[in-house]
Amino acid sequence: MRILIVNDDGIWAPGIKVLAEVLKSKHDILVVAPENEMSGNSHAISFFKEIYSRKIDLGIGVDAYAISGTPVDCVRYGYHFLAKENIDLVVSGINNLPNIGTDTIYSGTVNAALEGALLDLQAIAVSTVAFSEEEFYYSANFILENLGKLTSKLFPAGTIANVNVPAGEDEDIQGVKITPLGIARYSDRYKEIKTENSTAYMLVGTPVRAEENPLDCDVELFAKGYITITPMSVQMTNLDALSKLKEEWK
Amino acid sequence: MRILIVNDDGIWAPGIKVLAEVLKSKHDILVVAPENEMSGNSHAISFFKEIYSRKIDLGIGVDAYAISGTPVDCVRYGYHFLAKENIDLVVSGINNLPNIGTDTIYSGTVNAALEGALLDLQAIAVSTVAFSEEEFYYSANFILENLGKLTSKLFPAGTIANVNVPAGEDEDIQGVKITPLGIARYSDRYKEIKTENSTAYMLVGTPVRAEENPLDCDVELFAKGYITITPMSVQMTNLDALSKLKEEWK
Repeated sequence: MRILIVNDDGIWAPGIKVLAEVLKSKHDILVVAPENEMSGNSHAISFFKEIYSRKIDLGIGVDAYAISGTPVDCVRYGYHFLAKENIDLVVSGINNLPNIGTDTIYSGTVNAALEGALLDLQAIAVSTVAFSEEEFYYSANFILENLGKLTSKLFPAGTIANVNVPAGEDEDIQGVKITPLGIARYSDRYKEIKTENSTAYMLVGTPVRAEENPLDCDVELFAKGYITITPMSVQMTNLDALSKLKEEWK
Repeated sequence: MRILIVNDDGIWAPGIKVLAEVLKSKHDILVVAPENEMSGNSHAISFFKEIYSRKIDLGIGVDAYAISGTPVDCVRYGYHFLAKENIDLVVSGINNLPNIGTDTIYSGTVNAALEGALLDLQAIAVSTVAFSEEEFYYSANFILENLGKLTSKLFPAGTIANVNVPAGEDEDIQGVKITPLGIARYSDRYKEIKTENSTAYMLVGTPVRAEENPLDCDVELFAKGYITITPMSVQMTNLDALSKLKEEWK
C-alpha cells in the first residue's frame, strides 16, 4: 500500500519515525508532519495562510516533509499536493500519550485520521504511552501486523480505526477490545504564571476518567491493559433531538 | 441570563460587538474573544501554553476580554476563570460567513459552542453573511427573540443549536427550518506563492455543496434563503460499525 504517515507531535518526534521505519518494510511511505509540536490542535486547518514545506532526512530511507501547518493540513497538503492523490491509507501517529474517550476531540492525531476519512481515504490513528524511541516499536508492529484487518470493510467509508496501545510488551497486554469511546474530560486547572510585568494563565492537568463510564469503553479497558480499537466517524447532527425539534418547534 | 459570548473572528470583529450589544438589552453579558483572527481553528485548545488576557472596551458597556488563545480556550478560560462558572449560556458568533454542512468541523465558531455543551452549558452558534456592522443586526435580533426556544429542552444536554441566517431582512428570508447538516466539502486548491527565495502554498477556495445532498439539509435550505437550525453534538463512535466489528474481528 501507499501510506501517508502524519502526526501532531511534529516531524522530529520518535513515534512517527518508528512508525515509518516499521511500515516501510512492506509498504511505500510518505511522511508529512508539522514543523512544530501541534498537540491539541484538533481539526484546525490553515485557510488563506502560507504553508511552507521542506524535505527532511529522517535517516530511515523514506520520503519525509515538514510543513508549517497543522496535522489536518499535513493530510490535505500531503495527499493533494505532495502525493498527487496517490495514497491508499493515512496513518496518524504514533502519539506518545493515549487518545481515548471524549478527549479525542482535542487530538490532532485523531483529527488528522478523521480528515483522511473525510477525503474518502482509509485511515488509522495510533497512540501509546512512550517516552523513548524503543517504546514505540510494540505499537508500530501491532499496526503492521493488523493492517489488513484495520483497513478491511469492517471500517466503512468515512470511518477511522482509533487504536490505543498500553505501555509494555506482549506479557503486559491483556488483549484487543473493540469498544466505544468513553468519557474522559480534561481537568480544568489554570496555573498562574507571574513575571515582573504580567500575569498569564496556563491550562494544565490531564484527562480524567468519568465515574459514570460503563466497563465497556475505551477509557476503562485501556486502563485495564487492553489494546482498544474504536471505529470513529464525524456525524454531528443529533438525530434524536432533530426529530423532536421538527415536531415541536413553532 | 448570564451569557458568555465568544467568537473565532477575534475581539474586534463587528459580529461579536453587535451580538453583545443586542443581547445586553435583556441579559448579563461577558465577552471573551481571541486577540487574533482564528477562523478554521476548529476545536483546538492551548495545553501548556501561556494565555494572556486583557480587558477591552468595546464601547457598548459590556465586560469584554481578549485572550491569546483559541475559540475553545475562550469558552474554558471565560467560564472557569473569568466568570467563576457563573454562566448559563454560551453564544458563539456572529460569524461573518455561514457554518453549514460537513464544513462545520473546521469552524471555530461551531466548536466553541460545542465546547460549551461539553462543559454542560447550553450553547448556540450563530453565523450569517455580513460585511458591515449593520448587516449583523438581523441575525442578532433573531437570537434575542428566539432565545427561549433555543435554550429549551428541545436541545438536550450536550447539544448546541447551530443557527445560520441568510443575508437580508424579513422580506428576503423564506422562514426557519430545523434540518440536519448536509455535505459541503472544502474545495482543494493550493495556490502557489513565489517570492525571491521561497515557494509557499496556500489553501484557498470555498465549501462546495455536494451533488448528493438531499433537499432537507442545512446546505440546501440555507442556499434557498431559509434560516437553518441544526441540533449538533459530539458523538464520534460509529455505533453501526462498532457492532459489526465486535462480531467479526478475530
